[in-house]
Amino acid sequence: MSEMRVIKVKQSVLANNDARAAKLRNELKGKGVFLINVMSSPGAGKTTLLVNLINKLKTKLKIGVIEADMDAIVDAETVASKTGVKTIQLHTSGECHLDAKMVNEAVDFIGEEKFDILFLENIGNLVCPAEFDTGAALNLVLLSVPEGDDKPLKYPLMFEKGNAFVFTKMDTLSVFDFDLNKVEERIMRLNSKAVFFPTSARKDEGVDTLADYLIRLVEDYKK
Amino acid sequence: MSEMRVIKVKQSVLANNDARAAKLRNELKGKGVFLINVMSSPGAGKTTLLVNLINKLKTKLKIGVIEADMDAIVDAETVASKTGVKTIQLHTSGECHLDAKMVNEAVDFIGEEKFDILFLENIGNLVCPAEFDTGAALNLVLLSVPEGDDKPLKYPLMFEKGNAFVFTKMDTLSVFDFDLNKVEERIMRLNSKAVFFPTSARKDEGVDTLADYLIRLVEDYKK
Repeated sequence: MSEMRVIKVKQSVLANNDARAAKLRNELKGKGVFLINVMSSPGAGKTTLLVNLINKLKTKLKIGVIEADMDAIVDAETVASKTGVKTIQLHTSGECHLDAKMVNEAVDFIGEEKFDILFLENIGNLVCPAEFDTGAALNLVLLSVPEGDDKPLKYPLMFEKGNAFVFTKMDTLSVFDFDLNKVEERIMRLNSKAVFFPTSARKDEGVDTLADYLIRLVEDYKK
Repeated sequence: MSEMRVIKVKQSVLANNDARAAKLRNELKGKGVFLINVMSSPGAGKTTLLVNLINKLKTKLKIGVIEADMDAIVDAETVASKTGVKTIQLHTSGECHLDAKMVNEAVDFIGEEKFDILFLENIGNLVCPAEFDTGAALNLVLLSVPEGDDKPLKYPLMFEKGNAFVFTKMDTLSVFDFDLNKVEERIMRLNSKAVFFPTSARKDEGVDTLADYLIRLVEDYKK
């Protein structure tokens, strides 16, 4: 297997995925279903944020959740038991990311017509999920305070592909070296349209602002 | 591109990599160079631990560092300036992991004969680096307290492939839900030979114990 052959296979996989993702995005737009791809490092707080956020949104909008994991079911159980919204588990069998095909199958399975927002919790990984368009209308990227403000320098593609950025665990700011201005500047350099939401899901800080932002996006989307 | 074709290419890539890694491991053993593959999530504290650890080891052993990043050079500059040991930067051009070929080239470049220990700081990623044998004699896996004690449930391959596990940022234990007994149990279920090192590099706690462990491993290795 030559290196060149491997690169060609990867390019072909990515091109196929882009086409599938565009088709899915178009179908979801037609149905008024707003798909949100939630990405971050392992342990940045995707599940905790989703639980808090969904409990704020669910009285106003019909919410569904697709939880991806390589193997486990703990997150899907947590979200389902703490929010009561319909949640399905998608297993990637060891794959490091979701692709549009997996997401399309999950969307068909959950029965997308019923939902205003479908949250897709991607595999915890700052690298691979950024390469694969899932067909989502919004890429929501989380960065936790303990991870450090240098992450946009080291994982630039994720910060280019994100649309909205949630800084999580903001209640631990005094314990870690994390400069909010610096991290926002670093992201803006990669992505001038980025919007930012500092939050602490545990202390219920900043999540209302994020919920209002998503409600406005969904209203615009359905026009 | 059929799915089956993609899977076959991946299997072929992994088989080639395993063969290359075994050859590199054998060559390094012949030269008495102990290669340590350091893996974790983004922001778990690989660089901070390495700086503290190397400053303890460098009076007793000749140390070199290979810093991998997709694009940045910040970690290599930090390690070089704070430890004074020879450090080279390896760029993966967006790849999510190191493979044995990249590591072999880096080892040739740094001039391995001179070193007792070569540290290899892998890409911050709990998924892909676990699939690719680098040729290292030891896989050192870091898990930070803020990430949570459920990570072995969700990223099992990394915890199967690790040999020694360093829990980092232990000084923040009071701020997060992290049960040390529970995480050790979860790792032991995947990997009965696992050994554990709770540390805080910032407070300089537990790193001496890890340094002593590595010194003993290197002595045994050179026998």
